[in-house]
Amino acid sequence: MQTLTVELGERSYPIHIGRGLLDDPQRFAPHIRGQRVMIVTNETVAPLYLDRLKATLSGFLVDTVILPDGEEYKNLETLNRIYTALLEGRFDRRSTLVALGGGVVGDITGFAAASYQRGVDFLQVPTTLLSQVDSSVGGKTGVNHPLGKNMIGAFHQPRCVVIDTDTLNTLPDRELHAGIAEVIKYGLICDRPFFEWLEEHMEGLLAREPGTLAYAIHRSCQDKAQVVAEDERESGRRAILNLGHTFGHAIETGMGYGVWLHGEGVAAGMVMAARMSRRLGWIDDGELTRTEALVRAAGLPCAPPPELSPDRFMQLMSVDKKVLDGQLRLVLLRGIGEAVVTAEFDPRALEETLVEVGRMKDAGS
Amino acid sequence: MQTLTVELGERSYPIHIGRGLLDDPQRFAPHIRGQRVMIVTNETVAPLYLDRLKATLSGFLVDTVILPDGEEYKNLETLNRIYTALLEGRFDRRSTLVALGGGVVGDITGFAAASYQRGVDFLQVPTTLLSQVDSSVGGKTGVNHPLGKNMIGAFHQPRCVVIDTDTLNTLPDRELHAGIAEVIKYGLICDRPFFEWLEEHMEGLLAREPGTLAYAIHRSCQDKAQVVAEDERESGRRAILNLGHTFGHAIETGMGYGVWLHGEGVAAGMVMAARMSRRLGWIDDGELTRTEALVRAAGLPCAPPPELSPDRFMQLMSVDKKVLDGQLRLVLLRGIGEAVVTAEFDPRALEETLVEVGRMKDAGS
Repeated sequence: MQTLTVELGERSYPIHIGRGLLDDPQRFAPHIRGQRVMIVTNETVAPLYLDRLKATLSGFLVDTVILPDGEEYKNLETLNRIYTALLEGRFDRRSTLVALGGGVVGDITGFAAASYQRGVDFLQVPTTLLSQVDSSVGGKTGVNHPLGKNMIGAFHQPRCVVIDTDTLNTLPDRELHAGIAEVIKYGLICDRPFFEWLEEHMEGLLAREPGTLAYAIHRSCQDKAQVVAEDERESGRRAILNLGHTFGHAIETGMGYGVWLHGEGVAAGMVMAARMSRRLGWIDDGELTRTEALVRAAGLPCAPPPELSPDRFMQLMSVDKKVLDGQLRLVLLRGIGEAVVTAEFDPRALEETLVEVGRMKDAGS
Repeated sequence: MQTLTVELGERSYPIHIGRGLLDDPQRFAPHIRGQRVMIVTNETVAPLYLDRLKATLSGFLVDTVILPDGEEYKNLETLNRIYTALLEGRFDRRSTLVALGGGVVGDITGFAAASYQRGVDFLQVPTTLLSQVDSSVGGKTGVNHPLGKNMIGAFHQPRCVVIDTDTLNTLPDRELHAGIAEVIKYGLICDRPFFEWLEEHMEGLLAREPGTLAYAIHRSCQDKAQVVAEDERESGRRAILNLGHTFGHAIETGMGYGVWLHGEGVAAGMVMAARMSRRLGWIDDGELTRTEALVRAAGLPCAPPPELSPDRFMQLMSVDKKVLDGQLRLVLLRGIGEAVVTAEFDPRALEETLVEVGRMKDAGS
């Protein structure tokens, strides 16, 4: 087992990474203050891991909420099901919520914890690669609104994150690939040596070699933790973590939540950001080619779906949270391992990029 | 104009109290960071003050959401109307929400600000006595759930509070009285000289003498600010602000939101707390009599509605946010001006108090 600490002063917390951690009470118990625990999970994950986690937490009074599975359920209505279960069970302020599942379960449970009785504790037990390398660090919680993704939420840090890498054995290939998109992102935005390591080890990741996966997860969390520690509330540099996300969210929203996986949107979005950076002359052809090749090697889409016209893209991107006073800011590349957040780009480069990718054929997920 | 600063480190903010402040742009402009402002108000307040406030804020791009009026609309559905308006209007993270109205508008707008894009700024313009002396200080925001009042929310401090005492001229008597309940509360929990001042000046308050009202508002905010500054997140002493609220919330929830006004529930709840404190021998007959007399002089109920049986009370109180690990904590009195939060009381004193007030005749609101 490896342990990483996310340093956030009095809100610091550990991330434990290793095999079989789901069965180890010592990873959980020290972080649960009261007697009452509510595990929130979904219909896919519950049959696989719920009983094991309940057994591990048998020293507490444990209740369960099982949500439907899918990004399309990450909304206020599903959130309200958690509130109702907590209130019906008379859960008080010293209760602890445990999110067992992927990013949707983690985000919605985190926001329920942030807002139930104005804030209770929660633990994360992410069971998908994407949630392990993304939602484990940063404290972003929330739900979607029909008009925009993650538009409702809060910053709320977990007390602890437990990543049992064995849970990846049950993950469908498509979701494994989607998780790798976020892993590649860390290399691209701030860790060129990791990008190069990924170029070497993509086969091992796709073959789910435990050591390779554990290393990629640990390094991703470390990279993210460093960026977050510098800027917890996302007033500046932290926004580089959104490389590919403004484009990606537009794809997800435009296609309807759940049609494209989040990681797939981010993958296509990262290549779009690289293309635009190339167009601006900020990276060279070789860097663009390597970016695209790594995304493709991970079995991920390199272009958005042809259904989304450039105009539709612009419209969808205008509600992005990085828009300030009406000005669109994008995360772009100054090189592999060096991302910047900026509104200072020639708008024609964006338009031309949207037109260019609209003509590409290898879209689709 | 008087100005009070709520001292909360980098979240400190001013409360301006005076006549005609609604027309003074300088009370607002320094606290608005971007160009976009969304005023949230309700159907009752909008015809009275919305145009004036819009004129005052004419230097900004101002939109409006008008909600239905009443505690029964303080829920997730109404909250979602604010999110939708913000998203339809393409409001970004640098936007400012302005709550123009009473406690319901303030609480729901504050929570919308706390959770829209994970947090934007908001200003409070409370137009009822209750909201002026209660929601102005403390940063509590939220909505109700059918199973419990204020069960969903966040701590989120406003950038500024503007109290125009002239707005009280349009307040119905019943709501004026309900506001005075919270004013009396400050005397009871931590400010015996203020309690005595209120015994002297209740007539002036009821007659809406501007100077008397302004003094009562200023002193109430000052008392509350002091308690909150000591304990922003309500881990301890701050809970004394809930004197009468555990009983009062049970009355509100039990009768259906909106049937009893919040202040009316608190009034009856404070007398219940005083009765129970008397039963425990913590205050004497004279203190109980003075408490009841002051509540009555303000035109407020001294007992709960006869519909609520002791059993129903216990059931309703068991979801209170002050319950910890299943143990009910109450705010009780050790004297006029001295409240304590405690779970250490003889449970029979609670039962007997509920039975006693159940037999009283002057209930009703």
